[in-house]
Amino acid sequence: MRYKAIIQYDGSDFHGWQKQPGVRTVQQTLEEALANLSPGFAPVAVHGCGRTDAGVHAEGQVAHFDLDRTLSPVQLHRALNGLLPRGDVQILSAEPAAPCFDARRHALGKEYRYRIWNAEVMNPILRRHAAHVRTPLDISSMRDAAAHFVGEHDFAAFSANPSRELESTIRTIFSLDIVNETGSPSLLEFRVRGNGFLYKMVRSISGFLIAVGIGREHPSAVLEVLATKTRTSRVESAPPHGLTLWHAWYM
Amino acid sequence: MRYKAIIQYDGSDFHGWQKQPGVRTVQQTLEEALANLSPGFAPVAVHGCGRTDAGVHAEGQVAHFDLDRTLSPVQLHRALNGLLPRGDVQILSAEPAAPCFDARRHALGKEYRYRIWNAEVMNPILRRHAAHVRTPLDISSMRDAAAHFVGEHDFAAFSANPSRELESTIRTIFSLDIVNETGSPSLLEFRVRGNGFLYKMVRSISGFLIAVGIGREHPSAVLEVLATKTRTSRVESAPPHGLTLWHAWYM
Repeated sequence: MRYKAIIQYDGSDFHGWQKQPGVRTVQQTLEEALANLSPGFAPVAVHGCGRTDAGVHAEGQVAHFDLDRTLSPVQLHRALNGLLPRGDVQILSAEPAAPCFDARRHALGKEYRYRIWNAEVMNPILRRHAAHVRTPLDISSMRDAAAHFVGEHDFAAFSANPSRELESTIRTIFSLDIVNETGSPSLLEFRVRGNGFLYKMVRSISGFLIAVGIGREHPSAVLEVLATKTRTSRVESAPPHGLTLWHAWYM
Repeated sequence: MRYKAIIQYDGSDFHGWQKQPGVRTVQQTLEEALANLSPGFAPVAVHGCGRTDAGVHAEGQVAHFDLDRTLSPVQLHRALNGLLPRGDVQILSAEPAAPCFDARRHALGKEYRYRIWNAEVMNPILRRHAAHVRTPLDISSMRDAAAHFVGEHDFAAFSANPSRELESTIRTIFSLDIVNETGSPSLLEFRVRGNGFLYKMVRSISGFLIAVGIGREHPSAVLEVLATKTRTSRVESAPPHGLTLWHAWYM
């Protein structure tokens, strides 16, 4: 039976999503929990909709996997969370899916959120979940810059390693909103929705928005840099711990 | 020179505010930073407005201390934060105060906030900063119960160890609001303002509000329990990591 699961994690103590020898990753932690759930069965591979880097969080990572054992969604969900005792990764839901369901290929779009604490002193409570920017940010200029990212573009200049991409570096950003959280004037959030994202694309866009916010770049520079289709040191990736994979949606 | 400082901390990795041998506490961490700042001077004692327990956080702990070295508030503030490299305690501001200023005695009132994640699955990002309650809470009943706490009462029944109090167990709660955070329907916050709080009083009140929310207690039971002036097992302290010392105010 194929399952679709929604997974939340605090990325602070993970070396990212993808399995790697000798380090703790989300994918491997989930596969070990599934192995403990179905001893004697073949190892279960878990496929996520987005490979998050070390330190990146998820409120709505979507993954699929095949399980031979027959369990109700509620049983599966509770048993899995019981096998994830550290609490920094949890299954929000697990439900049967079509046998061909693919969490990555079938995603119509995804939303990422990037959080910034914009104040002289970093808030200790948020130090693992928001990037710290001391210089006061010009939000109006950042919104002008954000508007230039929306639409279909070749995002090669805002990707860490475009050659990694097997196919096109063209993606569509549906919306990029800059939101001030209620009650916390220092907390700023970029909300990016798109049909797909290149490697480090959201962190590169976030880094460039910060450069605009502190006055190092002009908002129109977005179009200029996009047109070069080449990553240079002008684009800096914002730190990973500000980033959260928020949501993925499907038909 | 006497200073008044506003201090923020993530209580997760501290054994509370108060100095104790062999464990890491906020008070001791601050006193060590001040000792590093003024080598050769007498040890500096830091006095907070509220002694928070292990796991309890602060957005606005206020403290006073005397420093012989002459530093501008900005120099002091930056130097201290530089000496607190782990980032889980930070000085938001430090300014000269009257020689008799006392962070605890001169506080006109304080606000504490208690956070609850009310959903089947705990959100991993909030696991150190909100308590987890699985049962859906009846917020309307909780608000009825909250109204009974407001005003001047003998809070002995909602204190962990009334005999610890040298003086009266009478305190005034100015307001107790139950707030649903925007955008996160599962996140609930109790905001309690009062002229002073007994040991574990906010956690005891929060525990009782939860008991009302899950239907184990009736809202009017608050008056009944207050009248007993005796702590019994009927009042349970909610876990420490949901609690934050939010603010203290002065004339």
